[in-house]
Amino acid sequence: MTDRQNVQPKRTPIEDIGKINLIERLLGDSISTVSDVTPYTSEQECHWIDSHSLLLEGIDFDLVYTPLKHLGYKAVLSVLGPIYAKNHTPETISIRIGLSKRFCVEDVEELWFGISAALGDHKISSPGLDLMPSLTGLTISLSSQGKQKKEVFVQTPAAVAGDLICITGSLGAAYMGLQLLEREKLLFTSNPQIQPKLDGYKFILKSYLNPELNTSVNEIMSSNSIIPSDGEFISRGLADAVKRVCRRWGTGAKIFLDKIPIAAQTFEMAEELNMDATTAVLNGGEDMQILFTIPLASYDSVKKEIPNMDIIGHLSGAGSGVNLITPDGAQIELKAQGWSE
Amino acid sequence: MTDRQNVQPKRTPIEDIGKINLIERLLGDSISTVSDVTPYTSEQECHWIDSHSLLLEGIDFDLVYTPLKHLGYKAVLSVLGPIYAKNHTPETISIRIGLSKRFCVEDVEELWFGISAALGDHKISSPGLDLMPSLTGLTISLSSQGKQKKEVFVQTPAAVAGDLICITGSLGAAYMGLQLLEREKLLFTSNPQIQPKLDGYKFILKSYLNPELNTSVNEIMSSNSIIPSDGEFISRGLADAVKRVCRRWGTGAKIFLDKIPIAAQTFEMAEELNMDATTAVLNGGEDMQILFTIPLASYDSVKKEIPNMDIIGHLSGAGSGVNLITPDGAQIELKAQGWSE
Repeated sequence: MTDRQNVQPKRTPIEDIGKINLIERLLGDSISTVSDVTPYTSEQECHWIDSHSLLLEGIDFDLVYTPLKHLGYKAVLSVLGPIYAKNHTPETISIRIGLSKRFCVEDVEELWFGISAALGDHKISSPGLDLMPSLTGLTISLSSQGKQKKEVFVQTPAAVAGDLICITGSLGAAYMGLQLLEREKLLFTSNPQIQPKLDGYKFILKSYLNPELNTSVNEIMSSNSIIPSDGEFISRGLADAVKRVCRRWGTGAKIFLDKIPIAAQTFEMAEELNMDATTAVLNGGEDMQILFTIPLASYDSVKKEIPNMDIIGHLSGAGSGVNLITPDGAQIELKAQGWSE
Repeated sequence: MTDRQNVQPKRTPIEDIGKINLIERLLGDSISTVSDVTPYTSEQECHWIDSHSLLLEGIDFDLVYTPLKHLGYKAVLSVLGPIYAKNHTPETISIRIGLSKRFCVEDVEELWFGISAALGDHKISSPGLDLMPSLTGLTISLSSQGKQKKEVFVQTPAAVAGDLICITGSLGAAYMGLQLLEREKLLFTSNPQIQPKLDGYKFILKSYLNPELNTSVNEIMSSNSIIPSDGEFISRGLADAVKRVCRRWGTGAKIFLDKIPIAAQTFEMAEELNMDATTAVLNGGEDMQILFTIPLASYDSVKKEIPNMDIIGHLSGAGSGVNLITPDGAQIELKAQGWSE
């Protein structure tokens, strides 16, 4: 055994300090400490929405290459994203974490470090938290409530053909970051002497491991009285998000491929892995970007006031289908996992 | 193969009809159909609370002896219970279900049958639903929002020493039902020819498999202007529930063992299994009963108006501990799982 190996990180079993003490230590002083419920209220009359995420180890994340603090941060974004997409502001959150025996106090603290950072960034105080045993690894369930002033909410227009389809940032990067990490994991599994080659791919790795949620668009829309007709958090690829909006409103959609922002690194990685960057954009996941549909009347405001929002297409009439238009004018029907029609 | 074995129940893979179609079929016509968020609002100014349950296969339920429709019904009660315990009324619900490959469309429909029945019984319409893959069996996450009129909520008194500790029904039965099912499962595993012996234990089996939530107490309190100072859903045994209330308010508590309602079948099963019924009451789980703390001033109203609520003790001063008083006057400090002090 070398000297380095003698310095083992401390691993405290959760039963040594007790679940309730651990929860109180994580939350700090708070009346909601050991409560099953999270209270909230508002001074004004508000419209509320509930967003709800369930993240399962082995499906939604792989702890071989995902640090727990990054996972904690991302988990919070996964439940806040749909709230911002509906033009609401998150107000409260409740988190349930299922832990199998291989997780210790220090693991939970690292996960909570990431969760706390995200809560701070999005100004959410007094989270609710419970820990519970799991037979099968780590499970994270999050529930968040977001509000919008009723006077704003009642002005929300119906989504109709002609509405602009806009997105808050580049797509496909998180998926290509994940593919890179999966490749390096496979290589490392076959030969542990191999050092992972991650240089030069900082952007796509950050997009997957340590993304941020661009909420400035919500603020700019609010201060310019732009009220989107609908929105979707793009967590399962662009195709799924567009199809959800169309299904809700009974419209079609046209998306112009050459209008979709795709980062250079996303193209490079796709080429290196012999994959199609468009697939990553349409059917990849976890881009942490938001799609808004915005009435055509706001076109000038969007162009002028929100330079970091891209207009990639528009809603079209019922029966026209949900289509991707390629630069040469070809029209391809969008497919998405889980949609069988 | 016998004729009987030829009649196999139909098992449709979920991908055959597609996740989105299945969700829409379960929900029926609803605008919330394929939405990530569940909207809600209220005409009056309200105080809201969020309740959140995470149920994991192998920890929280065993499908060997739990029919999926019963599981669905119970899962909904597990998230509504804490809302009634805080004297609020559930208004909305969102459900996420993680499914491994062994679950088919018919399984999800059976689970949803139970969920729908519970939603109907508690007058909750427009649930949110999403289905997702899981590597490891069935995972159910539920989030529910409950409301109380602000004018009632602001009258909620602080919990103080002297407050009555009341419960809505008998304790320990669900835990003994579970022990019975576990015993029969073990016997069946060792010899599949053995038929389970469940006769004569209908009450404890129903308490575990097919419980109901007694919400009449909430209604009676409301119509008699009784406002509890606090409450807990007794999902992890009485000791945990009492300790949570005491921790929140910095009080002690005295519980009188001979005041706790325990069903005859609970005692019988405990004796048959050589167990202590008191352990089932204090540290068993899933009783689906509610503990309320009620100001002493409401003693007469509680006795007169709510005959089906039992007063089992009272809060006591800070530093007096959380104690069980036996019929012979001995005082035993309550212990609960997860509490290490």
